[in-house]
Amino acid sequence: MKKGHFYGIHRVIEPKGSLPQPAWKIDNTMTLYDNEILIDVKILNIDSASFNQMKEAANGDLEKVKGFILDTVAKRGKQHNPVTGSGGMLIGIVEDIGVNSPALTKGLKKGDEIATLVSLSLTPLFIEEIIKIEEKTAQVFIKGKAILFASGVYAKLPDDIPRKLALAVLDVAGAPAQTAKMTRKGETVVVLGAGGKSGLLSLYQAKTKAGATGKVIALEYDSSAVKMIEELQIADEVYQVDARDSLEVLKIVEEATNGELADLTINCVNVPDTEMSSILATKDEGRVYFFSMATSFTKAALGAEGVGKDIEMIIGNGYTKAHAQIAFDTIRSATLLRSYFEEKYGK
Amino acid sequence: MKKGHFYGIHRVIEPKGSLPQPAWKIDNTMTLYDNEILIDVKILNIDSASFNQMKEAANGDLEKVKGFILDTVAKRGKQHNPVTGSGGMLIGIVEDIGVNSPALTKGLKKGDEIATLVSLSLTPLFIEEIIKIEEKTAQVFIKGKAILFASGVYAKLPDDIPRKLALAVLDVAGAPAQTAKMTRKGETVVVLGAGGKSGLLSLYQAKTKAGATGKVIALEYDSSAVKMIEELQIADEVYQVDARDSLEVLKIVEEATNGELADLTINCVNVPDTEMSSILATKDEGRVYFFSMATSFTKAALGAEGVGKDIEMIIGNGYTKAHAQIAFDTIRSATLLRSYFEEKYGK
Ligand SMILES: NC(=O)c1ccc[n+]([C@@H]2O[C@H](COP(=O)([O-])OP(=O)(O)OC[C@H]3O[C@@H](n4cnc5c(N)ncnc54)[C@H](OP(=O)(O)O)[C@@H]3O)[C@@H](O)[C@H]2O)c1
Ligand SMILES: NC(=O)c1ccc[n+]([C@@H]2O[C@H](COP(=O)([O-])OP(=O)(O)OC[C@H]3O[C@@H](n4cnc5c(N)ncnc54)[C@H](OP(=O)(O)O)[C@@H]3O)[C@@H](O)[C@H]2O)c1
Repeated sequence: MKKGHFYGIHRVIEPKGSLPQPAWKIDNTMTLYDNEILIDVKILNIDSASFNQMKEAANGDLEKVKGFILDTVAKRGKQHNPVTGSGGMLIGIVEDIGVNSPALTKGLKKGDEIATLVSLSLTPLFIEEIIKIEEKTAQVFIKGKAILFASGVYAKLPDDIPRKLALAVLDVAGAPAQTAKMTRKGETVVVLGAGGKSGLLSLYQAKTKAGATGKVIALEYDSSAVKMIEELQIADEVYQVDARDSLEVLKIVEEATNGELADLTINCVNVPDTEMSSILATKDEGRVYFFSMATSFTKAALGAEGVGKDIEMIIGNGYTKAHAQIAFDTIRSATLLRSYFEEKYGK
Repeated sequence: MKKGHFYGIHRVIEPKGSLPQPAWKIDNTMTLYDNEILIDVKILNIDSASFNQMKEAANGDLEKVKGFILDTVAKRGKQHNPVTGSGGMLIGIVEDIGVNSPALTKGLKKGDEIATLVSLSLTPLFIEEIIKIEEKTAQVFIKGKAILFASGVYAKLPDDIPRKLALAVLDVAGAPAQTAKMTRKGETVVVLGAGGKSGLLSLYQAKTKAGATGKVIALEYDSSAVKMIEELQIADEVYQVDARDSLEVLKIVEEATNGELADLTINCVNVPDTEMSSILATKDEGRVYFFSMATSFTKAALGAEGVGKDIEMIIGNGYTKAHAQIAFDTIRSATLLRSYFEEKYGK
């Protein structure tokens, strides 16, 4: 077995010297290096911003979306959407483990079912066949293989959570974990894109941490999702609004907070142009957590400066310690939320 | 006088409902609304990432850069570089003040010389003529007018700092102010792009706040700039490296910190693809402050996740309280640094 680099540099084809994530193209030959893990892939969970972009570009034609995915993987060696820059994750069965893989010392065995917790945008992937695309979950069932580098994070799937549900939840595991870390008791938290996967999990953690003296405000676009959030009882108030309409968002948050605005705003929307709404919703010296992959760095930086808002804006790092555990625990404790997720993703 | 909106929405042409910064096109007619300020513009300070991009696209031909600027302002009503998304700032003389401008209560008068502290990417600008472009400072001398909205932040120029120097320093005022806020005593701070305007000011603040028990490491591309930083005595260690070469950056920072890495990394580079270097240079649970406008949101978010780094990544908000004051005070206290800046920007 050839020796692999901890960060997977040995598979970078273009540009040389780059790491696998920023690289344009990586090597997806399925021959194992000494510290890698080979995975027999079952399901890809496409990142929401990416799936949304492909669906729009394909005018909703899922056969075309299939074509986009196959094309991207053929060209780049990974499912790294060239427009949104984002990926997603996968689940599969461990087929082989390199002799020097750190996973060996952690007890990983051939035949274990795992989810990768690093983005598809850096994961060598080979697709033999796309079996089907499930539109409502953005999950793609394939025959194929993938490689996990020595630095790659993964989670074994728990027995008490169905695998499709586990995959959906793990894809956005960073959001509830960061929300839990960032929310302080008594705070007012606004969640944009509250009805999506990451939004719902974040609402629950925000409410748990802000406590009875805090206030969690959910903003959602879709009227049926608004109703669903109300029924799940995980937000103090729910409003229907287009997150791109920054003045309308400002008005709603002003009214809901007596003009005080949010201490913390969590952006979980999957479409572009919602930076300004997040900024205006937040009080001076407050914080904005941009989990959305459709966030533009310059729009956020210059948007806040442009309105003279002294706020801290944080880039949604997909990884934080124990994030998989926190995501699973959220599902385990939030009974109503779990039922909703099970209905959507299967029991 | 017509009534203007606090955030300048009344001048947004396209798309409707947007704020001036994210808007594609704004109205640069120089007729004053009741809460606006009209400025007789003297110098534009083009954002470094933007100037660099235009210079590269023009193969160094400054006449072509002139053309780009005139074209952008004609099309968008503002100097909002469509490629980098960034702007810059300006200085000029107050020509008129709307009767309901909040600046009146703050004592601003016609004839005062001010610098705008909001980005050119949202400032209505009309250029009659570009007199000259100064390459080494990215300053553009023009005949023209600009508008500042009621929400727009500005600073009166102090008597003891030359105006070209003041402009250069104010353009990047967010960086030293945020560095001062973020650096804790005894910390190890790495600054990428340390030899530029924002880099030098940030080095000084980092060293001041980290104190004798802290360590400030400057990374710079250019060998003469490396020497200059050493002479200015504002960093504990200086290394020459290409900030895009993430593995080399990692190696240098590892060696300089006995493998500990940085508590805080400040990215002040003006070229793309330096996210990974910033991430690798930073220790687990450390922080990265991305001041660079060439930062990609997805590259940062997915890059950190890809290598399993639990770090906080902050979007460089150009505004924070007292940032102009902190920037001027930096220049006033750092004697050697001041001489260097005066040599470059004029006394
Ligand atoms: N930082 C990271 O590491 C990371 C990891 C994974 C995902 N993400 C990103 O996080 C975001 C959310 O992901 P997700 O999986 O939770 O997505 P999701 O389940 O598809 O949810 C997206 C939500 O945004 C809502 N939305 C869409 N357009 C809207 C608008 N104009 N106004 C208000 N709400 C709107 C959707 O409402 P509808 O139901 O009406 O469409 C939905 O509730 C995506 O951008 C994704 O790329 C980031
Ligand atoms: N967030 C905000 O509000 C805000 C406001 C203003 C500016 N900015 C951004 O902040 C950044 C710095 O601005 P500035 O005015 O300080 O720029 P600057 O004075 O032009 O400095 C840029 C520095 O980056 C260095 N550099 C360029 N390529 C490099 C490479 N490959 N490796 C290492 N260093 C490299 C340059 O070195 P050389 O001397 O060799 O070129 C220079 O020292 C820019 O991206 C700018 O857009 C942000």
